[in-house]
Amino acid sequence: MNIIEIIEKKRDGYPLSDEEIKFFVRGVTDGSIPDYQISSLLMAIVLNSMDDNETAVLTYEMAHSGYVQDLSMIPGLKADKHSTGGVGDKTSLVCVPVAAACGVPVAKLSGRGLGHTGGTIDKLESIPGFSADVSMYDFIKNVNEIGLCISASTAELAPADKKLYALRDVTGTVQSIPLIASSIMSKKIATGSDCIILDVKAGCGAFMKNEAEAKALADAMIKAGRAAGKKVSAVISDMNVPLGTNIGNSIEVIEAIEALKCRSESHFYDTCKKLASEMVSLSLDIDIKDAQSRCEKALESGAALEKFEKMISRQGGNSKVIEDYSLFKQPRYSYAYRAPVSGKISNIDALLCGKASCLLGAGRLDKASVLDLSAGITLKASKGDTVKKGDILACLYSDKSDISDTLHLLENSYSFEEK
Amino acid sequence: MNIIEIIEKKRDGYPLSDEEIKFFVRGVTDGSIPDYQISSLLMAIVLNSMDDNETAVLTYEMAHSGYVQDLSMIPGLKADKHSTGGVGDKTSLVCVPVAAACGVPVAKLSGRGLGHTGGTIDKLESIPGFSADVSMYDFIKNVNEIGLCISASTAELAPADKKLYALRDVTGTVQSIPLIASSIMSKKIATGSDCIILDVKAGCGAFMKNEAEAKALADAMIKAGRAAGKKVSAVISDMNVPLGTNIGNSIEVIEAIEALKCRSESHFYDTCKKLASEMVSLSLDIDIKDAQSRCEKALESGAALEKFEKMISRQGGNSKVIEDYSLFKQPRYSYAYRAPVSGKISNIDALLCGKASCLLGAGRLDKASVLDLSAGITLKASKGDTVKKGDILACLYSDKSDISDTLHLLENSYSFEEK
Repeated sequence: MNIIEIIEKKRDGYPLSDEEIKFFVRGVTDGSIPDYQISSLLMAIVLNSMDDNETAVLTYEMAHSGYVQDLSMIPGLKADKHSTGGVGDKTSLVCVPVAAACGVPVAKLSGRGLGHTGGTIDKLESIPGFSADVSMYDFIKNVNEIGLCISASTAELAPADKKLYALRDVTGTVQSIPLIASSIMSKKIATGSDCIILDVKAGCGAFMKNEAEAKALADAMIKAGRAAGKKVSAVISDMNVPLGTNIGNSIEVIEAIEALKCRSESHFYDTCKKLASEMVSLSLDIDIKDAQSRCEKALESGAALEKFEKMISRQGGNSKVIEDYSLFKQPRYSYAYRAPVSGKISNIDALLCGKASCLLGAGRLDKASVLDLSAGITLKASKGDTVKKGDILACLYSDKSDISDTLHLLENSYSFEEK
Repeated sequence: MNIIEIIEKKRDGYPLSDEEIKFFVRGVTDGSIPDYQISSLLMAIVLNSMDDNETAVLTYEMAHSGYVQDLSMIPGLKADKHSTGGVGDKTSLVCVPVAAACGVPVAKLSGRGLGHTGGTIDKLESIPGFSADVSMYDFIKNVNEIGLCISASTAELAPADKKLYALRDVTGTVQSIPLIASSIMSKKIATGSDCIILDVKAGCGAFMKNEAEAKALADAMIKAGRAAGKKVSAVISDMNVPLGTNIGNSIEVIEAIEALKCRSESHFYDTCKKLASEMVSLSLDIDIKDAQSRCEKALESGAALEKFEKMISRQGGNSKVIEDYSLFKQPRYSYAYRAPVSGKISNIDALLCGKASCLLGAGRLDKASVLDLSAGITLKASKGDTVKKGDILACLYSDKSDISDTLHLLENSYSFEEK
């Protein structure tokens, strides 16, 4: 088999055979195909796309390009949840304990964030003492004993995807549904869970800018996952405005705890419950309505909060943060961002808010960045609210004394309908 | 300016600005843009094409990415001729002396061949003593004194094209009219001639498989050349069957000499006259009919043959070959290839004949190959001829004693309508 012929075939719009995709992924993994041939094929895929079978085979081969976790020591159908990434998205911190409280074994691998948002692991690490570096032995033990564990990806899962992901980033080949779907799903399949619940974000703060794109991506991911023998379902959720009120790390954990205490802003709370219900429905193989009512009960009874508390303790964290938020690292400075005019807030641009939070210290500008886990933004007014000039729109937290760049971004993120 | 944004722009189907193309070519030339980004953009160009302005700017920038020959020391409008490559194509050996005999200054740079055919320089070097390594000083001197010189490209002309050409070859990005046109024309423009006559081949033995493709390529090259201030014209010529009867190096020179002696197979002879007439018409700025009759006279009077003889002598070759073909290196073996059946020859596949000749030793399989300048094939029957089983179809010349691979190719290259 010859990589040039494979490139030409895709360039000319033909579907690649299973063997050709396998050859490509193997060559990417072992380095025998040079980057310039990989990127040429990637661009041909971006422009001529891939059909469902090609996407499924690419996903499967990338998933198996390295170590695939074996979770067979955990009884039951393990569930994992993945979000395509949004601003203020702390849903995992809520839906994982809720699902666990309903009896779903959740063995979740998460990542650290790169770009404007911290990842789930960054957020959890804002809890004093919490460690996401869990051995495989403890990972399985924790899930078997307390029903849940969230661990940082340590093993080289889907190394072919890692290589392609880095190359796509610098060759203008990110925007492609088959490539995005196979990238996400290959990593999820390699983590070994039986059920994968996808939270596909749509809107200006997300990768997919509208619902149609998000649906197409969800569809491709569901097909690729099912082809690999997984149970998969997807929820499309809005990401035009930030999810919930807090954007950062520790402040997002606090918002999640509030949700687990059933005290939360409705859109965020609803999204968490929707995702948890899907996890429960797929894993326990029950009707979605039944799953929803079990989730409600898990929240209302405090069982979900208890699961979260147990997970924190088990992973070395100080679970007293649940009752005493002052145990989180406190920011050196806090600022009030006030309405520049009177009027109705017609939009809060999620992407700009995310970037603003990143500049405060909550996100990484590059791999080497050290996060300020206390930094971030708490929104004090929502889209649709009517405010007066000078009202506080958001509180900003940071160790930085100069936040003029953040303020500039925030000014652009709010739109008003002036009277 | 940012190469990723340029790639994305072309990926999304937008035309690149002059500055963006300039930035790209500069980055290719100085190595600041890595190969994987170049190949990604090349694939985007293959699939989303380039408009006339983009092609013209790419051509001009590549032409000026290195040394551009200054031929201003030669009075008059210098003419160059380029063929897109075919099997048995020795037209330059005829039309250059014909044009020179008509008073056109021809300062021609040619290449050595790679692939199934030898280049013009390889063919000329089959003349004992002939040297194509001519200094710039002698190059200009020869054209001024005897009207013509054919020299091997030595200076780094169009280095950006050289880089892109090598990369296209291994990334499935060869097939693109803007890329082919700019590659050819950038080198032609860098050689410094005022008039460029293009011989665009169409057919199974050529790069462009049909006349429509060949016309589109000719059109793109004419526009790119004219945008750079050159006089350009193009001739489309058939390359389904080999051009003329001889395929090799010395045997092609012999066929060219026969043509200069007005003893030649008609299709090849006509193509040479057509190209020479275009050179004369453009360079001397005269009507094409007038140019044609001057070319006929140059051939019939022996003036063209005399120019060829002078060029050989001036470049160190033994011009007695013109009268005595036995002065060429002789092959160790010769073979007769006979008709396997009786019938009418319905086709002689040019590409397979070229490959067969290459296997005999006439072409390079890689850059390091040493040519057997006496090797090749002489066709003894043409498409449309009716032959009997056992009739000689072709004579094969080689230093090799085992030519079974060549015979296998030839068997596939002939088609017969059996009675």
